[in-house]
Amino acid sequence: MPDQCVETLRAVAVVGVGMTPVTSGSGKSLSQLFVEAAKDAIEDAGVDRIDSIYVGNMMSGFLQNQEHLGSLMATALGNEGIPSYKVEAACASGGVATNVGLKAVMSGLEEIVLVGAVEKMSGYTTPHVTAGLMMAEDKLGVGATGVTFVGLNAMIAREYMHRYKVSHESLAQLPVLCHENALSNSKAQFHKKISVDDVLKSSLVADPLRLYDCSAIGDGAAALILAPLERAGEFTDSPVSIVASTIATDLLSLHQRADITRFEGSRKAANRAYAAAGLGPDDIDVVEVHDAFSVLGVMALEDLGFAEKGSGVQLIENGDCTRDGRLPTNTFGGLKARGHPVGASGIYQLAEITLQLSNRAGACQVPNADVGLAQSVGGVGSTVAVHILKRGGQ
Amino acid sequence: MPDQCVETLRAVAVVGVGMTPVTSGSGKSLSQLFVEAAKDAIEDAGVDRIDSIYVGNMMSGFLQNQEHLGSLMATALGNEGIPSYKVEAACASGGVATNVGLKAVMSGLEEIVLVGAVEKMSGYTTPHVTAGLMMAEDKLGVGATGVTFVGLNAMIAREYMHRYKVSHESLAQLPVLCHENALSNSKAQFHKKISVDDVLKSSLVADPLRLYDCSAIGDGAAALILAPLERAGEFTDSPVSIVASTIATDLLSLHQRADITRFEGSRKAANRAYAAAGLGPDDIDVVEVHDAFSVLGVMALEDLGFAEKGSGVQLIENGDCTRDGRLPTNTFGGLKARGHPVGASGIYQLAEITLQLSNRAGACQVPNADVGLAQSVGGVGSTVAVHILKRGGQ
Repeated sequence: MPDQCVETLRAVAVVGVGMTPVTSGSGKSLSQLFVEAAKDAIEDAGVDRIDSIYVGNMMSGFLQNQEHLGSLMATALGNEGIPSYKVEAACASGGVATNVGLKAVMSGLEEIVLVGAVEKMSGYTTPHVTAGLMMAEDKLGVGATGVTFVGLNAMIAREYMHRYKVSHESLAQLPVLCHENALSNSKAQFHKKISVDDVLKSSLVADPLRLYDCSAIGDGAAALILAPLERAGEFTDSPVSIVASTIATDLLSLHQRADITRFEGSRKAANRAYAAAGLGPDDIDVVEVHDAFSVLGVMALEDLGFAEKGSGVQLIENGDCTRDGRLPTNTFGGLKARGHPVGASGIYQLAEITLQLSNRAGACQVPNADVGLAQSVGGVGSTVAVHILKRGGQ
Repeated sequence: MPDQCVETLRAVAVVGVGMTPVTSGSGKSLSQLFVEAAKDAIEDAGVDRIDSIYVGNMMSGFLQNQEHLGSLMATALGNEGIPSYKVEAACASGGVATNVGLKAVMSGLEEIVLVGAVEKMSGYTTPHVTAGLMMAEDKLGVGATGVTFVGLNAMIAREYMHRYKVSHESLAQLPVLCHENALSNSKAQFHKKISVDDVLKSSLVADPLRLYDCSAIGDGAAALILAPLERAGEFTDSPVSIVASTIATDLLSLHQRADITRFEGSRKAANRAYAAAGLGPDDIDVVEVHDAFSVLGVMALEDLGFAEKGSGVQLIENGDCTRDGRLPTNTFGGLKARGHPVGASGIYQLAEITLQLSNRAGACQVPNADVGLAQSVGGVGSTVAVHILKRGGQ
C-alpha cells in the first residue's frame, strides 16, 4: 500500500449482519438462501438502498449448474441495475468477497455495499460433493490422482501429529469445544454435545481423520452491510470497524510446499493484518478459525500467532479458548458445529465476530471483547483471508 | 460516487497487454493459456513485480471441474503469496474482473495489478458446452424449460427484426465486417472472408440465427497490466488511460423484462461511463461491441448511443463501422471472428482498444483514434461492463 494514499482511504464499518441457519437439507435454492441472509442484514442495518453487491460462492457452477450469481442475486433482491459481482476463492470465497467489497467502500467508489455469500451442498450424493470440493485443488495435477480433499487434510493431520507428537485425543478437543459452543447458537447445524471419546470412536473418513474431526455438508448464506464509518451512526448504535482485511495465497498444492504443517498463507495474511491494524496476537479478544478439519483449527491458532508451532492444542486444553477464557475461539460453533457451507463460512465468521463486538451475540456472548479476528481458508491453505474487526471506531 | 472522494482517486493506465490466439482446440490447460497471456502482458509492460491478480472466468467449475483460479494462476505464474481473486459474471467476466482490479489501483490499495481472463471451451461435446452457457441464465426458472442460450438470443433476434423491420440481410452485415477485420488479426480464430449470402445460407442454429450469426466455441486468454497513470512512464511510452469503468445489471431473465430489443444494462452502464468520463457517443473513435450473436452487436450500437433504436444496421451499411469509417467497430474481428472464449472476451476487447489507442494495432490499426469504448455482456444483457479508454493522460 503506497504511503501517500493511506490517508485518503475511508474507515469502513459493518452496520448490519444477517445469516440463515446452516442445515443439512434446506430445500431452498441458492437465491432463496442468499435473499434470506441479505434481507436479514439489510433490515438489521435499516438501509434503504445499496450501491453494489459482492457474492461469495464456490460450487454453484459444479453443483447447481448456475453461474452469474451477481445478476441472479441483484434480481432476486429487487436491486437489478446496480453493479453485482461474484467472487470465488474456494472455501475462502466469503472472506475474499468481503475484502473486495470493503476495498470499494474504502476507496469512496461505493458507499453502502452488500457483501454476502451462499453455498448449497445438500441434495447431492456425497461422492458428487466430494468431487466438487476438489475443485479447490489442482484438478489436473492432484485431483487426477484420485485423492479427495479430506484425504489431503488427513495427510496434514498425520504429518502434524507425527512431527509435534500431538495425539488425536488432543486434536479432538477442538470439535468438542465447537459442539459445546454451538449448543447456544440457534442457527448452528448441530446442537449435540460430544466428547473426545465420541470423536475417537466416530467413523473413519480418511485416516486419521474421523467423522467428528470433519465439518459436514450444509446449506447456508450470510451477509454484511458495509458503510463508511463516518456514516455508521445513521444505521447502528454499535458499529464495528474493519481495521484490517488481507488476502494471501500460497502454492496451490501440498506437494509443492516444504512444510505442510503450517500454512504460509495464514502467516502472511495474519502478519499483514496485524501490521495494517497496528495490533498483535495479544490484542485479539475473540477469534474465528477455519476448522474445516480439527487439525486445521489447531494449526490456525499457531499460524495466527497465538501459540508456538505444535502447541496449539495447549491453548484449548488450558481452557483459554472457551467463551470465558483468554482467547474465546469459534464462539458460535465454528465450521465444525455452526456448519461449513463452504463459500459462505467466511461471512458467517465475520457476522459472528460483529455480533460479539457489538454485544449482540446473545447466549454466545463473550465478555469484554473489543477486537476480533477471523481467518478463512481456501483449498489446503492456498488462499487465506484474515480480517480484524474492532468495536466502534478505529 | 460521493463527490468528496473523487479527487482522491488515482488515474489508472493500461501499461501492458497480452493475449493468446483464440483457437477451436488449443490442447492447453486453463493455467497454460492464462500464463501465456499474462507473461505476454508482463513482458509488454516490463514490470518486475505485480501486487495482485484478478482472474475472469465463467465456466471452469462446470467444464474443467476446477475452481480457485486465483491461487492456481498465482502459483502457475510463480507469484504465490500475493492476493489473487477470481471474478465471475458469465460472458462479462473479463470486463467485470477489470472493473474490480481497476478499483484496487484507483484506491491506492494496490499498485501494479494483473487483470487476466481465460476460458477453455474446446474438447467437450457441443451439448455439454451449450448446457454450460445456460449457467448465465436462471437455471431453475428458465434453464429448466430446456431452452438454450442461443435459443434465447434467437427470440431477441426475431422480436428485433419484426419490431424494427430489419432484415436478416442487414443483420448479417456485422459478421461479414467482423470476418473481414479478422483477416488481418493473426490471433483471430477465423481467417475466412464471408459474404451476406454465406451467412444466410449457413446452417440454422436457432431460427432465425444461423451459424455465421453466432460466435463459436473457442479457447483463449487475455491480460492487462494496470498501473497508476502517474507511474505509467516507467513502463511504456504510450500509456492508455481508463477514464471510465462501469457495471450495470438488469433483471436476469428475458421474460422478466418489458422490452427485449434493448438492453437496459448497456444503456445504464454506457450512460454512467459517459458521465464519468465527461464524454458522449460522438467522442468515441473506436468501439468493441459484444457481438456474441449478430443481433446483439447491432443492438449494442444503439444502446451505446451511436444510433437510434432500430437503425444500428445503417451505421454498418453506410460504411461507418469499417476501420477507415467514422466509428471503426470490432476492429480485430469481434466476438464473431476474433473469437469468444466467453469469460475472456471482455479483456481481449480492452487489449485491442489499448493497442489501437497506442498505435500498436499493426495491420488492424485505425487512423487517429484517441478514445475507445468496449462493451462486454454477461447473460442476455443481465450484466454489462462498459470501459472508456483514452490515449495518454486524462
